[in-house]
Amino acid sequence: MPGPLITLLTDFGTRDHYVASMKGAILSINPTVRIVDISHQIAPFQILEAAYTLSQAWLNFPTGTIHIVVVDPGVGSTRRPILVKAAGHIFIGPDNGVFSLVLDRLPEYAATEITNPRYFARQPGRTFHGRDIFAPVATHLSAGAAIQEIGKRINDLHFLDSIRPLELSPRHWTGMILSVDRYGNLITNFPSDEFPITPEKSYVLKLGGSSVCRHHPYYDAAAPGTPFMIHGSSGYLEVSLNQADAAAQLGIEAGRTVELRLL
Amino acid sequence: MPGPLITLLTDFGTRDHYVASMKGAILSINPTVRIVDISHQIAPFQILEAAYTLSQAWLNFPTGTIHIVVVDPGVGSTRRPILVKAAGHIFIGPDNGVFSLVLDRLPEYAATEITNPRYFARQPGRTFHGRDIFAPVATHLSAGAAIQEIGKRINDLHFLDSIRPLELSPRHWTGMILSVDRYGNLITNFPSDEFPITPEKSYVLKLGGSSVCRHHPYYDAAAPGTPFMIHGSSGYLEVSLNQADAAAQLGIEAGRTVELRLL
Amino acid sequence: MPGPLITLLTDFGTRDHYVASMKGAILSINPTVRIVDISHQIAPFQILEAAYTLSQAWLNFPTGTIHIVVVDPGVGSTRRPILVKAAGHIFIGPDNGVFSLVLDRLPEYAATEITNPRYFARQPGRTFHGRDIFAPVATHLSAGAAIQEIGKRINDLHFLDSIRPLELSPRHWTGMILSVDRYGNLITNFPSDEFPITPEKSYVLKLGGSSVCRHHPYYDAAAPGTPFMIHGSSGYLEVSLNQADAAAQLGIEAGRTVELRLL
Repeated sequence: MPGPLITLLTDFGTRDHYVASMKGAILSINPTVRIVDISHQIAPFQILEAAYTLSQAWLNFPTGTIHIVVVDPGVGSTRRPILVKAAGHIFIGPDNGVFSLVLDRLPEYAATEITNPRYFARQPGRTFHGRDIFAPVATHLSAGAAIQEIGKRINDLHFLDSIRPLELSPRHWTGMILSVDRYGNLITNFPSDEFPITPEKSYVLKLGGSSVCRHHPYYDAAAPGTPFMIHGSSGYLEVSLNQADAAAQLGIEAGRTVELRLL
Repeated sequence: MPGPLITLLTDFGTRDHYVASMKGAILSINPTVRIVDISHQIAPFQILEAAYTLSQAWLNFPTGTIHIVVVDPGVGSTRRPILVKAAGHIFIGPDNGVFSLVLDRLPEYAATEITNPRYFARQPGRTFHGRDIFAPVATHLSAGAAIQEIGKRINDLHFLDSIRPLELSPRHWTGMILSVDRYGNLITNFPSDEFPITPEKSYVLKLGGSSVCRHHPYYDAAAPGTPFMIHGSSGYLEVSLNQADAAAQLGIEAGRTVELRLL
Repeated sequence: MPGPLITLLTDFGTRDHYVASMKGAILSINPTVRIVDISHQIAPFQILEAAYTLSQAWLNFPTGTIHIVVVDPGVGSTRRPILVKAAGHIFIGPDNGVFSLVLDRLPEYAATEITNPRYFARQPGRTFHGRDIFAPVATHLSAGAAIQEIGKRINDLHFLDSIRPLELSPRHWTGMILSVDRYGNLITNFPSDEFPITPEKSYVLKLGGSSVCRHHPYYDAAAPGTPFMIHGSSGYLEVSLNQADAAAQLGIEAGRTVELRLL
């Protein structure tokens, strides 16, 4: 019977020892844990990027998985360490909005402020809660600790603003670029199921000085050099180029505003 | 008794969630699988680079290991998803030549086109076959599914061209740079066992405007600043500098043609 | 009962197959081993960077962990492969000073030169001892081989120079930057327990043309834009900026000399 699963998502990078220190802390408490990296390449302090990445990755993991997120510019200050249970998964990290995109789709969740130092490292510092608080708490939970032992229920989580598209006028929406992936695909925040672009419908997406109106079912169906819309694997409308970098060609970065018009 | 081994080799990078989504998909189907990353830093769409990396890594793993390769610019198009069994290992990925360097050395192999949707994710998309087809198929195989259930045997695999050196005239060969590694070592496609450079034999390797004629048994045996040939750990003739970057100094990239003359 | 732990710390990067080849070699000898990456992003041949990273990571792992370090510009030459046992952990790598910062804090250690080819790969090359010597030796140890079978005791390990601060005159010290982390934090070699900066004491740290005299207990307590000292998670005095890159702003790199004055 394989051990419990803990995933890690941080902005630590992979050059320093920080990720390994968390893994060592986990395995020192519960050696049966299996650790899976989601990413450590979140740009430093970019909470939206982490929120998007978590929202994409978590639902591929089995029920019972514990997800630790450490993108935490407020570490050591008054920002709260929290634990959220939703859809049979547990999410642990700072209360800075990093769980916004997961919880936007999961209205039934229970949040707990992490306060019980019994589940922390012996002398937790004020600069590395990933190692000293989040990893130990997650690992004690994996070994059977009860959530109500960790802290007290809260109902006032911090959420990121403007993560959902806004209808400015009939058939005219404003949204944003949630993420730019390694290939240069631009992932918008228009959910594919709410904005089902098909050959029968016409849409225009404006981003920067460019307008995109073509759509294709897969990348290789597009002619080279012309950006197109696609329902990518993310569940959101994406803007892509066939074997080229749409973000670089269009000069667009994560966080930029876009407009969608339904013709 | 440890679980089955699945390795992953992709051009996904490690910033996005793509690798983690594949790992979650694997562990959701068979939680006993042990996953080992070969690399996710293959340059986007560079099939030769992936083919070389796989050919170097696979044979260090135990018999029975399943290797998934996702460098797949044609995802969603008519390119076939395939499974190849050779030397007791299983290789899974797109039929785009990515297995060429492995199979070049293993003439006895059996290839299967992956067609049975019973072993796919429930609603496979057209843009992320790593998560929706390759990972589930590999994991079902790890859990006991039979290869003949996955699809039908095929005998017309796609191979990369010109991966072997060509004898232009007696003792005069043309070849290529298969890879440039992190240290700047230039790995050619001249197999060390077929081109055994020794102090008794004289060779000249021409690459770009440079000629290399020295050879050394290990890096630190060379004087700084002068490129030399070495039988590196890859099994191929390499061009290196002692504690410096031969690729940068010589201005050579992967894919470049080289000439070898035996004097 | 989970298998033995082996950690890996190298300058191999994560693009090439080198790390995977080591992992395959380990799992081929002892499939029960659990492998944890410390880092593979050490800059090529930077022994001090590896020494610092190891010294930070090792003590978070449980007793019995085996740590392999391969930052090894002298591979294949006369530099010795060694094994050091200290504090219940085993450290394996080249005798080039890479264990200096660990052993500086652990005066009771036992070192062994690795000489017994019975525990090596069958035909070890002269360019990839990580795969051919260090990984097999570590794995045989994990499976029960006795240290005295591996080689003979030695007492003349190579150590890095000037890793500890030097008192130039009363209350005036010279030290160095051990590491610059992903966030641009500058980690000095002044141990926090020996140099306990507190609001009651006044210190000035000079580095490059800059002087730093403020100190804060956590990053978010500092005003933006002004560098400050902090007792970071490393156990050393660090110089940081709140949500910005102190190394870039001050133009300081690892290895630079710094001066500390106690006022």
